[in-house]
Amino acid sequence: MTSAFAHPGLSIIFSVPEVSVHLSAGTQLAYILSVKVTHSRVLDNESTVLAVEAVQVAPQNLMPGAAVDSLPVPELVRCLRAQIPQELHTDIHRDLTCQDVIDTALVLSLRDIFVIFKLRLVALQTAISELSPNQTTASLVGRTRMQAVVPITVSDFLATWSMPLADLLTRLHEMLSRILRIQCAGPVGIHSGDALAVRLALFTPSKSWHAMRGGLCELAGWLSLFSSSLGKIGSDISLMAQQGLDEIYLMGGGSSSAISHKKTTFVELLVALVRFNTAQLAGMCQAQVHGKEHSGAAWALERMILPIMIQTTAPGLSVRR
Amino acid sequence: MTSAFAHPGLSIIFSVPEVSVHLSAGTQLAYILSVKVTHSRVLDNESTVLAVEAVQVAPQNLMPGAAVDSLPVPELVRCLRAQIPQELHTDIHRDLTCQDVIDTALVLSLRDIFVIFKLRLVALQTAISELSPNQTTASLVGRTRMQAVVPITVSDFLATWSMPLADLLTRLHEMLSRILRIQCAGPVGIHSGDALAVRLALFTPSKSWHAMRGGLCELAGWLSLFSSSLGKIGSDISLMAQQGLDEIYLMGGGSSSAISHKKTTFVELLVALVRFNTAQLAGMCQAQVHGKEHSGAAWALERMILPIMIQTTAPGLSVRR
Amino acid sequence: MTSAFAHPGLSIIFSVPEVSVHLSAGTQLAYILSVKVTHSRVLDNESTVLAVEAVQVAPQNLMPGAAVDSLPVPELVRCLRAQIPQELHTDIHRDLTCQDVIDTALVLSLRDIFVIFKLRLVALQTAISELSPNQTTASLVGRTRMQAVVPITVSDFLATWSMPLADLLTRLHEMLSRILRIQCAGPVGIHSGDALAVRLALFTPSKSWHAMRGGLCELAGWLSLFSSSLGKIGSDISLMAQQGLDEIYLMGGGSSSAISHKKTTFVELLVALVRFNTAQLAGMCQAQVHGKEHSGAAWALERMILPIMIQTTAPGLSVRR
Amino acid sequence: MTSAFAHPGLSIIFSVPEVSVHLSAGTQLAYILSVKVTHSRVLDNESTVLAVEAVQVAPQNLMPGAAVDSLPVPELVRCLRAQIPQELHTDIHRDLTCQDVIDTALVLSLRDIFVIFKLRLVALQTAISELSPNQTTASLVGRTRMQAVVPITVSDFLATWSMPLADLLTRLHEMLSRILRIQCAGPVGIHSGDALAVRLALFTPSKSWHAMRGGLCELAGWLSLFSSSLGKIGSDISLMAQQGLDEIYLMGGGSSSAISHKKTTFVELLVALVRFNTAQLAGMCQAQVHGKEHSGAAWALERMILPIMIQTTAPGLSVRR
Repeated sequence: MTSAFAHPGLSIIFSVPEVSVHLSAGTQLAYILSVKVTHSRVLDNESTVLAVEAVQVAPQNLMPGAAVDSLPVPELVRCLRAQIPQELHTDIHRDLTCQDVIDTALVLSLRDIFVIFKLRLVALQTAISELSPNQTTASLVGRTRMQAVVPITVSDFLATWSMPLADLLTRLHEMLSRILRIQCAGPVGIHSGDALAVRLALFTPSKSWHAMRGGLCELAGWLSLFSSSLGKIGSDISLMAQQGLDEIYLMGGGSSSAISHKKTTFVELLVALVRFNTAQLAGMCQAQVHGKEHSGAAWALERMILPIMIQTTAPGLSVRR
Repeated sequence: MTSAFAHPGLSIIFSVPEVSVHLSAGTQLAYILSVKVTHSRVLDNESTVLAVEAVQVAPQNLMPGAAVDSLPVPELVRCLRAQIPQELHTDIHRDLTCQDVIDTALVLSLRDIFVIFKLRLVALQTAISELSPNQTTASLVGRTRMQAVVPITVSDFLATWSMPLADLLTRLHEMLSRILRIQCAGPVGIHSGDALAVRLALFTPSKSWHAMRGGLCELAGWLSLFSSSLGKIGSDISLMAQQGLDEIYLMGGGSSSAISHKKTTFVELLVALVRFNTAQLAGMCQAQVHGKEHSGAAWALERMILPIMIQTTAPGLSVRR
Repeated sequence: MTSAFAHPGLSIIFSVPEVSVHLSAGTQLAYILSVKVTHSRVLDNESTVLAVEAVQVAPQNLMPGAAVDSLPVPELVRCLRAQIPQELHTDIHRDLTCQDVIDTALVLSLRDIFVIFKLRLVALQTAISELSPNQTTASLVGRTRMQAVVPITVSDFLATWSMPLADLLTRLHEMLSRILRIQCAGPVGIHSGDALAVRLALFTPSKSWHAMRGGLCELAGWLSLFSSSLGKIGSDISLMAQQGLDEIYLMGGGSSSAISHKKTTFVELLVALVRFNTAQLAGMCQAQVHGKEHSGAAWALERMILPIMIQTTAPGLSVRR
Repeated sequence: MTSAFAHPGLSIIFSVPEVSVHLSAGTQLAYILSVKVTHSRVLDNESTVLAVEAVQVAPQNLMPGAAVDSLPVPELVRCLRAQIPQELHTDIHRDLTCQDVIDTALVLSLRDIFVIFKLRLVALQTAISELSPNQTTASLVGRTRMQAVVPITVSDFLATWSMPLADLLTRLHEMLSRILRIQCAGPVGIHSGDALAVRLALFTPSKSWHAMRGGLCELAGWLSLFSSSLGKIGSDISLMAQQGLDEIYLMGGGSSSAISHKKTTFVELLVALVRFNTAQLAGMCQAQVHGKEHSGAAWALERMILPIMIQTTAPGLSVRR
C-alpha cells in the first residue's frame, strides 16, 4: 500500500516519530499482549501469565492472517496457542473478545499520546508568550474581511493564537474520563472489567463501549479544533508575508526550483492540515452509528481514520520560533 | 428562498417550534436590542436606554438593508437613529461592533436552547429507563456484524441507548463556560466587556472571540454526537423491525400509498439526521480558520450552518414511547 | 421551522427566485399532478385525466398529512379521491409509487433549472471575456503561495476564471442523460415506463432508479465544482482588494456599522458558499448507499440536501460587472 | 509515519498492488524524469536528453530534501545537476516548473490507472451478468425501508448492482479529456506546451491548470460514486446474510476469535470504504479554491487525498464470485 504520506516531500514533513510510534503495529501488539497478561493476572492464571510473557511474536507474522480476518487478534491467538502448552489454550483468550483487547490497547496508546500533546501545547503557549513581551509596543494593521481597519498591538494579535490553546488544554483534561475507559465484555458486551481496569489504571464505564464510540468522536473533534488553531496561525503568517504588506519575514521554509523567495511552504501546510483533518472528522462521526451490538463497517471506518487524524494533528505541534 | 425544509413532508417533521423560536429573526432582534440597552446602562446613558426601549422595529423592515450588508445591524442602527433624538445618534452604536451584538444575541439564545436540550435529554433517559425494568427478563438476539451471536437481556441492550446520553449531559455542562461568553470589542477585538458580561450573566473571555470560534465548533461536535446517539436508536429499530426478525413492532409512523405496513418512516429519519448533521459538522469546522482579525467568509459559513444543526438535532428529542 | 436562510441579512442574498420557484412546494405539486395526468393518458384513462385536471389542491393542505407520512403523495391521493368519482379511485394511483411521482417531478424541475444555469454560465463567460480585451496590456503581480512571482497579463489572469466555466458547460450537457430519467416502477422497481418517458420527453433507464441515485450525486459534484469556480473569483478579489496591494477597487458590497470602506461582503460570500456546498456534497454522497430496494433514510437525506445545494449555487450566478 | 493502513488487518486488505504501484514514489519519479527527457527533446537539446537518461536517482535519496521543500523536484534538480556537465545545468530545468513536472507525471499515472479501473469494471459487470441467468426464475423478498414488500426476481435485484457500473464506464470515458491534460507553464502559468503534449499523447488545455483542478475533483466524485456502487453491494449482502432472513450464505470472509460464523468482514469493509471515500471527497473539493496563481495549501491537500481515494476505491474492484 502506497500511503498518501509516502509521496516524497510529504512523508517526512508529516512524520512526528514520537507520536507515530504509539500507533505503530509494534506498539499496538505490545499493548495487546500486555492486556492479555494483565487479564490473566486478574483471573489468577499465573501459568498463562508466564506463558504469554515468554511468547515471541512479530507484527509482520500476523499480517497475512490479519488480512483475512481484518483484525490481528485471531491470528495472534493462533500464534500464541502454537507456543504454549495445550492446557492453556482456553485461558489464553477467555472472556475477552478481539475488540476488547484492540480497543483497550488503543486507549493505552492514547494515554501516552495525550501526554505528548499536553507537553507540546504548553510549549507552544510558552513560545507565543515569549514572543509577545518584546513586541508590546509594536503595532500591526488590524484587518477584518481582509480590509485594513485600525492598528492593534502585537500582544493583542498574538492572544488570538494562544487563547484557543488554553481551551484545548482544558478540554483535553475533561475528556480523559470519557476516552480512557477499559473495554471488557463478552462478544455482546455484557461482562464487566472492574479489576482489569484498576490494574491498567483506566476508567470503568457502566457498560462496555463496543457500540458507543462517542469518546473517540469527541477526541476527533478536539483534534480537528487543534488543527484549526494551528491553521489559523499558518493562514495569518501567509497573509502577513505577502509582498506589498510585508508584515512578517520568513526564514527557511523550503526552496522552490523557480522562485528563491518562496518561503511559505510550512505555513501553508498548516492550512492544508485543517482542511484535511476537518474532512476526516466528518468520516469519524459517520462511524458513530453502530447497528445493534457492533458494526464491523463502522469500526473499520474508525480504525482507518483516527490514526490519520492523530498523526496529521501532530506536525503542527512542531511549530518553533 | 425555498428552504430544504419547506418541502411538504419534511418541513413539519423537522419543526420543533420551542427550539426554532429561539433562532427566529424576531428573537434574535429582541436580544440584539436587549444587548444594546444593557450596554447603554453600563455606560450610564439612561436617555439612550429609554430611547431604545421605546423604539419600534420589525424584523422584516430590516431585510432589504440586511441583504445589502449581509448583516442586520447597520440597517438596525439606521432605523434606531431615525426614531431617536439626534444627540443620541453616537451613543446608540458606541464601542460595540455589529459582530459584538450579533454574537452576544446568539449566545443568549443558545443559553435558552441548552435548557430545552437538557430537559429533553433527561426525559429521554427516563423514558428508556422506564422501558427497561418491565423487560428485565426478556432477551434479544445479540448481533455483531449483522450476525446473530448470543442472547442478551433487553436491559443490556437499552443501556447502549442511554449511556451516551449521560456523557452528553456531562459535556453540555462542561462546555457552557467556553460558549456562553460575552462578545465585546472594538472593530478588531481589543476592548473588554466585563461589566456588560456581569449584567447579562455571561462568561468573560480574556479577549473577544471574533476570530476564535472554538466554542461554537465544540457545540457543533456535541450536536453531531447527539444526532448519532439518536440515529443509533433509529437504526436499531429499523433492523429489529425487519419481517423475518420481527423483534419489534411499530405503531404509527406514517403510511405509504402502496404498502400499508411501512411504519419505519420516523426511525429512518433519525438515521438521515445523523448523516446530515455530520456533513454539517465538517462545514462548521471549515469555518474555524479566520484570516487575521475576522473573516467574513468564515463567519457567514458559521451563520449558515449552526442554526441548521441545532434544528436538525432537536427533532430526535421528540422520541416518545 | 426557521431556516438558516431566514436570518436577516442572509435570506435575501441567497434568494434567486427564478431558481427557487422550481423547487417550491407549489411547483413540485404541479409537476406531480402533471405526471399523474400524463400517466393516465398513457393508460388511456380519459375520465381520470379529466377528473385530475379539474381537481383543486393547495400545497398547504397537504402539509399535516405529509408530516405524518414524510411524503406528500399519500395525502395527495386522499385529497384527489375525495374530489373524484368512486370508480376512478383505483386508477388515480395505479402502478406509480409515491417515489415514482416525486422523483419524476424533481427531474422535470431539474430540467427547467438546468436551462437557467446554462444561460447564466454563458452570461458569466461573456462578462469575463468583455472585461478582458480592454485590459490586454495591463499587467498584475502573479502570486503563487501568496508570494509575488512575475507579472502576468490581466487576460491570462482572467482565463483562470473562465476556463472552468467551459468545462462546467460541457459536463452539464454530458450528465443530462444520466439525470433526466423517468422514474417508473412498482413498489420494488420492476415495471418500465417507456411510454410515459416519451410523453414527458425524459430518458428511459433500463430499470427504475429508486436505489441508484448516481445521477443526482453527479449533479451534486457539479454544483460543488460550480461553487468552487465562483469561490475562486471571490477569493481572488478579496486578496487583490487588500490595502497595501490595492490591485482592485470594489464598489457597493454593503456597509458596516463601524468601517465605511468594508466592501468585500459579497466576494466573501462566494467563498463561504464553496465551503458550504462542499460540506453538503459529502452529505449527498453519503446518501448513495440504499439498503436493498430502497432506503427511506438515504432518500430523506438526499431530499434535505439537494435543494439546498441548488439554491446555494445559484447566487454565485448573479455575479455582475 | 504510521499510515492508517499500516495497522495489521487493514493494510493487506486495502492493498491492490497493481494500482498502488502507479502511485509509488518510484513510478512518480520515473514519470518525472520521462517528462524532463521528453521536454528536452521538444527543445532539441539532445545532449540534455542523453545526460538525463544516464542519470541514476533513487526516490529515497530525494526524501530529506523533499521534506524541507515539500516537493521532490528541487532536490531532484540538485541531484541531476550533480551528475551532468555544468553547461547543461540551465537546460535541465528550463521553462518547466516543479508543478508542471509533478502534475504531468500524475496525469501519466492516472492514464495507466484508468485502464485498470476500466478492465475491472467490465469484469465486475460480467461477473454479475453471469450470476444472473442461472437465477432468473428465483425470487427474493423485495424490501423498501427495511420492510418486506413484494417478491422480485434475482435478475431484477442484480440489475441494481450492475446498472450504475455502466454509468461509471460512460463517465470514465467522458472525463478523460478534462483530466489527461498536459501541465506546462512558467511559474504563473502563461506558457503553452503543445509540442510536449503531442509527444506524451496528452490533451492540451487552453491554459495551464495550476489553479484549476476541476478535472481532479471530477475524478474524486467518480471515485466516490464507484465506492458507493460497491458499498451498496456490500450493504445488501450484509442485510441478506442476517440469521432469520438467510437470503444469502457467505463463504470465507475471515474468522473471529469468538464467533465461528462471522463471515461478513469483507462486505462490511465495502460499506466502510464508501463512508471513508465520501469524507475524502469533501476534502478534495475543499482544495478547489486556489488563491491567485497557485495555493500551496490547496495543492498539498489535493496531494494528500487523491492517492488515498484511488487506493481505497481499488479494493472494491477485487470483488469476485
